Amino acid sequence: MEKINIRKLASILNISVATVSKAMRDSHEISESTKKKVWEAARKYNYTPNPYASSLRRKKSKTIAVILPEVADNFFSLAINGIQAVAEAKGYHVLIYLTHESFELEKTFVEDCCSGRVDGLLISITSETQTPDHIVKLQKENIPIVFFDREFEQITAPKVVTNDYDCGYQSAKLLVQRGCKNIRFLSISESLPICTKRAQGFLDAMAGTDKNRREEEAIYYCDGNNEQTREQITKLLSGKPKVDGIVASVERLAIQVYLACQELKIKIPKNLRVIAFSTVETAPILNPSLSTVTQPAFDIGKSAAEILFTLMAGKDYGYNKKPVMIPSHIIERDSTK
Amino acid sequence: MEKINIRKLASILNISVATVSKAMRDSHEISESTKKKVWEAARKYNYTPNPYASSLRRKKSKTIAVILPEVADNFFSLAINGIQAVAEAKGYHVLIYLTHESFELEKTFVEDCCSGRVDGLLISITSETQTPDHIVKLQKENIPIVFFDREFEQITAPKVVTNDYDCGYQSAKLLVQRGCKNIRFLSISESLPICTKRAQGFLDAMAGTDKNRREEEAIYYCDGNNEQTREQITKLLSGKPKVDGIVASVERLAIQVYLACQELKIKIPKNLRVIAFSTVETAPILNPSLSTVTQPAFDIGKSAAEILFTLMAGKDYGYNKKPVMIPSHIIERDSTK
Repeated sequence: MEKINIRKLASILNISVATVSKAMRDSHEISESTKKKVWEAARKYNYTPNPYASSLRRKKSKTIAVILPEVADNFFSLAINGIQAVAEAKGYHVLIYLTHESFELEKTFVEDCCSGRVDGLLISITSETQTPDHIVKLQKENIPIVFFDREFEQITAPKVVTNDYDCGYQSAKLLVQRGCKNIRFLSISESLPICTKRAQGFLDAMAGTDKNRREEEAIYYCDGNNEQTREQITKLLSGKPKVDGIVASVERLAIQVYLACQELKIKIPKNLRVIAFSTVETAPILNPSLSTVTQPAFDIGKSAAEILFTLMAGKDYGYNKKPVMIPSHIIERDSTK
Repeated sequence: MEKINIRKLASILNISVATVSKAMRDSHEISESTKKKVWEAARKYNYTPNPYASSLRRKKSKTIAVILPEVADNFFSLAINGIQAVAEAKGYHVLIYLTHESFELEKTFVEDCCSGRVDGLLISITSETQTPDHIVKLQKENIPIVFFDREFEQITAPKVVTNDYDCGYQSAKLLVQRGCKNIRFLSISESLPICTKRAQGFLDAMAGTDKNRREEEAIYYCDGNNEQTREQITKLLSGKPKVDGIVASVERLAIQVYLACQELKIKIPKNLRVIAFSTVETAPILNPSLSTVTQPAFDIGKSAAEILFTLMAGKDYGYNKKPVMIPSHIIERDSTK
């Protein structure tokens, strides 16, 4: 059978091309009965829409959106710089939406992106995000989307990440080598892949050294704002037996560990060794200087933006392939010596 | 004479209300000859448009924009939190545009705000911004605008600032009290009011103590990215006679001073005392802990957003009044002891 195009399908159904197009995109402007008619005809005549043709016809906003949890974290401010470097070279604006880890906000922001306000979306999900419906809806509207850092495992989309598992593994090994006996992994989420992968690497490294520790004891969850996480960390560090090693899964937890230690008069590294996933510029001038898993934040943002622009240009980047991985590396400083 | 409304004016001119409205806003959609006709008639019949009526009729985007130089600086990330707290309570989205101190970008972002994409704008200008035309154009479109922190002196608009002059004065006095003889004020701009006011306070405090120093020697300008400012600071700290006190006008300069001192093996506070305008959370855990002029960043953002929503609701906030001032305060730590 000859491949049918949208114009022919519209003429067969005696409706406009725009109506067919909107119906295929499941637009709310089209009645359910019309959608049903269009979808049945599309199946019957073997019509598949070209996702990019419709996107190209749409009026360009010359704007991309970035949805991310916060900007106080240096990782995200560097990633934004990487994104903006690419966007500016293309003559695009970057709109930044901050979720502050609120899933409700993330949903409304993603919805906002459906309205034609932006041509593409880069997203790093919240620690609360567990259902993908809002993202799937955006994908149905044919608005290109690329995940960076905090991806969503159940969704097929381009993703740019770092070697989280390996770095979790190496961080634990480093603390064990330095003589730590009672180590905790500080996490902000039970579902975020960046946390679960880093934690799994940590647990696998610990498995050989500390057979009696239950997994759920080794991972310590912190949530809430900085004040709340500081309280949780203070509680952890005040308990017995004394914790003598910490891997902080995100930057702000490391800062709260330092502030808690200052208050509790716990000496780093003498009483407690600390390593953190962090790109914080002050790491070398902290007291003591902080050992870090230094993430290529700028490059992660840059690479994600480059993929997004490839998709927006209607070129195939290769969905379904595995995530782009840009490795982090450990910089040891005084906090683990 | 009876006060004429837009409907009557349109009927006298035999054109549509929309055309009158656009002509009054100097819209590019209307020909110069029509504008001239409308403006002459408006003068003749003593018609003045109600700025908020047109704004209220306009479709609401339920979105406000924030234009600011960067988010790596903790001041701005805290200010954003204050802005977002207000906006979320009102059911508004916040779009963030980063200028990275580029005046060109600032202009295109402000232009973007004219298009109906946002209902109001909060702005902290770049260190390059010296002409106000882009802002004036936005004001003509009746889109409410509020300045926070980095304001524009020539423009009449609501502004929320801190006591920059006083804090510049007090910082210099503190260093003099601690015994410093050769003090520099590090600035990022010769035109930004936050810099010139802080510098003027600094100079006035120094005037009584150091009569032979020329003003242009006491203020040291740093520009460019972090790497470039580090080089400039390294050059300053390597020169003779040795600088023994520094007031950093913005946070990132203080971090570069610390990093330069680490490289040059200059001991803080023994060889060099440092105080910085900063809200950086790591100030107490730096080596040594950093004395700061701590700005009420969250409250400045919150207050600016509250004023913006007052204006957007069509209520009078009181233009022409002097800026809202929320005071900063000095927290002395080890870097000046």
